[in-house]
Amino acid sequence: GHIALTFSEPSFSSLSRCDVVFFATPNGTAMQLAPELLAAHIRVIDLAADFRLQQVDIWKQWYGMEHACPELLAEAVYGLPEQNRQAIQSARLVACPGCYPTAVQLGFLPLLKTNALVLQTLIADVKSGVSGAGRKAQVATLMGEVGESFKAYNVSGHRHWPEIYQGLTALTPEPLQLTFVPHLVPMIRGIFATLYAQLRDGHLDAHSIMAQYYQNEPFVEVLPPGTHPETRTVRGSNQCQIAVHQTQQRLVILVVIDNLVKGAAGQAIQNMNIMYQLPETWGLDGIALLP
Amino acid sequence: GHIALTFSEPSFSSLSRCDVVFFATPNGTAMQLAPELLAAHIRVIDLAADFRLQQVDIWKQWYGMEHACPELLAEAVYGLPEQNRQAIQSARLVACPGCYPTAVQLGFLPLLKTNALVLQTLIADVKSGVSGAGRKAQVATLMGEVGESFKAYNVSGHRHWPEIYQGLTALTPEPLQLTFVPHLVPMIRGIFATLYAQLRDGHLDAHSIMAQYYQNEPFVEVLPPGTHPETRTVRGSNQCQIAVHQTQQRLVILVVIDNLVKGAAGQAIQNMNIMYQLPETWGLDGIALLP
Amino acid sequence: GHIALTFSEPSFSSLSRCDVVFFATPNGTAMQLAPELLAAHIRVIDLAADFRLQQVDIWKQWYGMEHACPELLAEAVYGLPEQNRQAIQSARLVACPGCYPTAVQLGFLPLLKTNALVLQTLIADVKSGVSGAGRKAQVATLMGEVGESFKAYNVSGHRHWPEIYQGLTALTPEPLQLTFVPHLVPMIRGIFATLYAQLRDGHLDAHSIMAQYYQNEPFVEVLPPGTHPETRTVRGSNQCQIAVHQTQQRLVILVVIDNLVKGAAGQAIQNMNIMYQLPETWGLDGIALLP
Amino acid sequence: GHIALTFSEPSFSSLSRCDVVFFATPNGTAMQLAPELLAAHIRVIDLAADFRLQQVDIWKQWYGMEHACPELLAEAVYGLPEQNRQAIQSARLVACPGCYPTAVQLGFLPLLKTNALVLQTLIADVKSGVSGAGRKAQVATLMGEVGESFKAYNVSGHRHWPEIYQGLTALTPEPLQLTFVPHLVPMIRGIFATLYAQLRDGHLDAHSIMAQYYQNEPFVEVLPPGTHPETRTVRGSNQCQIAVHQTQQRLVILVVIDNLVKGAAGQAIQNMNIMYQLPETWGLDGIALLP
Repeated sequence: GHIALTFSEPSFSSLSRCDVVFFATPNGTAMQLAPELLAAHIRVIDLAADFRLQQVDIWKQWYGMEHACPELLAEAVYGLPEQNRQAIQSARLVACPGCYPTAVQLGFLPLLKTNALVLQTLIADVKSGVSGAGRKAQVATLMGEVGESFKAYNVSGHRHWPEIYQGLTALTPEPLQLTFVPHLVPMIRGIFATLYAQLRDGHLDAHSIMAQYYQNEPFVEVLPPGTHPETRTVRGSNQCQIAVHQTQQRLVILVVIDNLVKGAAGQAIQNMNIMYQLPETWGLDGIALLP
Repeated sequence: GHIALTFSEPSFSSLSRCDVVFFATPNGTAMQLAPELLAAHIRVIDLAADFRLQQVDIWKQWYGMEHACPELLAEAVYGLPEQNRQAIQSARLVACPGCYPTAVQLGFLPLLKTNALVLQTLIADVKSGVSGAGRKAQVATLMGEVGESFKAYNVSGHRHWPEIYQGLTALTPEPLQLTFVPHLVPMIRGIFATLYAQLRDGHLDAHSIMAQYYQNEPFVEVLPPGTHPETRTVRGSNQCQIAVHQTQQRLVILVVIDNLVKGAAGQAIQNMNIMYQLPETWGLDGIALLP
Repeated sequence: GHIALTFSEPSFSSLSRCDVVFFATPNGTAMQLAPELLAAHIRVIDLAADFRLQQVDIWKQWYGMEHACPELLAEAVYGLPEQNRQAIQSARLVACPGCYPTAVQLGFLPLLKTNALVLQTLIADVKSGVSGAGRKAQVATLMGEVGESFKAYNVSGHRHWPEIYQGLTALTPEPLQLTFVPHLVPMIRGIFATLYAQLRDGHLDAHSIMAQYYQNEPFVEVLPPGTHPETRTVRGSNQCQIAVHQTQQRLVILVVIDNLVKGAAGQAIQNMNIMYQLPETWGLDGIALLP
Repeated sequence: GHIALTFSEPSFSSLSRCDVVFFATPNGTAMQLAPELLAAHIRVIDLAADFRLQQVDIWKQWYGMEHACPELLAEAVYGLPEQNRQAIQSARLVACPGCYPTAVQLGFLPLLKTNALVLQTLIADVKSGVSGAGRKAQVATLMGEVGESFKAYNVSGHRHWPEIYQGLTALTPEPLQLTFVPHLVPMIRGIFATLYAQLRDGHLDAHSIMAQYYQNEPFVEVLPPGTHPETRTVRGSNQCQIAVHQTQQRLVILVVIDNLVKGAAGQAIQNMNIMYQLPETWGLDGIALLP
């Protein structure tokens, strides 16, 4: 009784009086209703993957179904505020980034925009808590299977790779190479990305580039050089923390987010705040639950 | 490749050359094949619940199906070696106890046999790791649901209650009262039973009664009075550890087992060793994996 | 940088401008400063144990030190709002309950006040996450020691026993008997109390007694009869959830709180709100972080 | 009482009747006794770091103390059987590898020996359970600190870096570059190494090189290409499992060991077996405890 929340089947009639509709639904759901909603001047924020990829054939390949409204892909704005704030403001249709893509792109973004990296050297070794796999009944995420163990998965290819690749490549003069390896951590919440790259020039100061780019961002905190963020420090909050470790040209960038907040629901709220020119931190100023 | 193990559908033809057949199958499986196997002079050890309860109507009530061979229930020997070793030796059909019943009965057994307890005062507050729920795909045992949380379940009635009640009542001159509350611990292996009862006489020494009863048991260790066993101390081993805390007439008995070993597969092996007059500890002398 | 917080040594001079001082300090600290603060008309809320026990000799016995101001014990109000709200309003000195005592007393309170229980039958089997042991460097709470394991501790006597006993006995016409067994759960936050007792009369409806007593309490929620609360449902919130299971005269009461909120800091804030006639839920209306 | 084990202070007199002495002691202990033991024709196996690094100044730099017997460093054999089996056979003094170095070196060894890698591209992103930090009383590894969280540590420099670097460089015609990032996983046992490198030639088949090199090794298992090992599959066993993922020139190698067995005590036994020409798997044929 702490929250007024009712559950119903998504349908145009039940949603038609909304100003904005959030889809926190399985992949393939938002695309069924989005055209009708947009036609009725209702804005749409999709937390699933329906509008994340701009090329419909790549989307089909990774999500294994036909797209219901490929004509909307070009219009959809990728909802990473730190990259696309201006476009989000006027967007009718926002595709919220996946959890891994949020962490990886926030870690590479300022360095790619300033053309600081050797584009053939990008590696994202990323670790996620089990809530990233959702809540469906399956053996693979039973506590008896994943507790007290650690593993990589989908090393040969994960749906978030094309999403990250699309986002990062858009920032660079020529295509880059990205190796992305997701892992499963025996904990519930949190994503930790360990990013590797070579700087084009050992005299560049990667920490300063990062700190400057994010200096006015309400939800990205660049920690002092050489520090070590932990996922628990952002548990339950919309914060992203980043630390940079540099040895000459070699870079190690550490990024933490809560996959269920900045990696999902929190970022969706942040996008809505931007779309309606509300204070961007409204509803999102909670701090982490620690310990 | 470390173990030679093949999987096949259970059938009489594939099992007919065995001396003994272990059923580590869902409830309702062993009872389909047991009559035919016994008729062919093959002994049967069931790790599931098909032959644990002697009254067929109670079995039906708790397991929700018809029993395929109620005529065998009277013959089946309840495979708790510390109670029934002699009957197990000559048994054709052994019903291995459930995990909770093993822990609870081992904790109360010597005191009930010596008529030391006030029979209206028995309480078993028992805690199990998640492997006790098996390996089926279900939301309830996902790590995202049970990790970092603790709960009781089935307080109004759990299938192991009639099994424990049947076992304990057989030891006493008159019916007893038993409250049994199972709980789920965010860990994989282990059962911890906290047992409460009143002694009939505050001059009785419950620890001594326990220590004497179990002095020759290879798999039950009565710890010094006032100590605190931990589930990890028996993780992976067939050991049961018991500690007794007594204040005048009030008793608190602590019992730990590994639900997958002494509470399941290990006890089944122990029963086989007894049935074939092999050394009882054969194959079971491994010590706990700690930490 | 999310919270303005500075650390300094506690001293009268640094605290003299406060209206109220919270002591979230080790046992034995608040009693050094409380007399001086009270003399200066500064109210004191102690989260430690210095003022929880009213008899100084019992306090000495369990906490192993001399009491610095035994003359204040009679005045100190035990800060369990659901029991002492009126006294808290005008208190100068509030002793916040321990985490276990909060859970156990909330579970028994309405039934003892209505004289519904057989006083010789109270048992509290209580389970706590590891944060209950504090943050000191010790082997006993290393993750390598307590992870993936479960144990009872201090079965022969725990400091919270006299506190609970004092609180419950004050509600009853004659002394009661209480067995209290604390356990350690491999999780960080949460207390789960499984309480056992006999009703004096099997026609009493324990659930209704509880529901009626707590109907206006902002932080105690009596769940429907026969349900099963989980610690995660109150993780990070000041809520207490209670469920009652009754079979004739036999009662099982399940209580969950977050030991660091309703069992500590949250309850301290709640007491302050009461002392200053602020809305009681100010600063405490956050809901649980789930999952 | 399951194991005959006595504890005493290490001293020459108490050890003088041994054939071989294992030092499972803090760094700096074995080097105090090793010269005397060797002089008495007693062989020494050190599980700590005293004899792992061959250059005494590098040892001093990372371990912060003077070395007591630098003259023995040249003689000490690095006890990684898969690399140095022959030298171990006749060694008087064996330095067992650290846990991280075991996993990382086993993953890179065959590829460096065959000169298959671009030496500037080696990255080891390695994750360890908390038992890797030992059992000392410290806040940093309390369950309340490391449970439900994930972090990297010592990114700027970890004692295992020079050890791995020394081992790998010895295999290559020219110095290599190695980035090594250790992480802490909220579980007790297990190391997972995710290794990245470029192949010199995209036509090389890294999986085959690995499978061939380890084909006769009793404790290294190269899994089919494209598979995903888990730490739990080797929990409690001396096995190392390796899987190779290759996309043209880009390599991802996954390695799992139990840090307390193949990464410590088990490997020490394996070395002893080799030194005494016992069957190499004696005492080490236990399989993993799963789940």
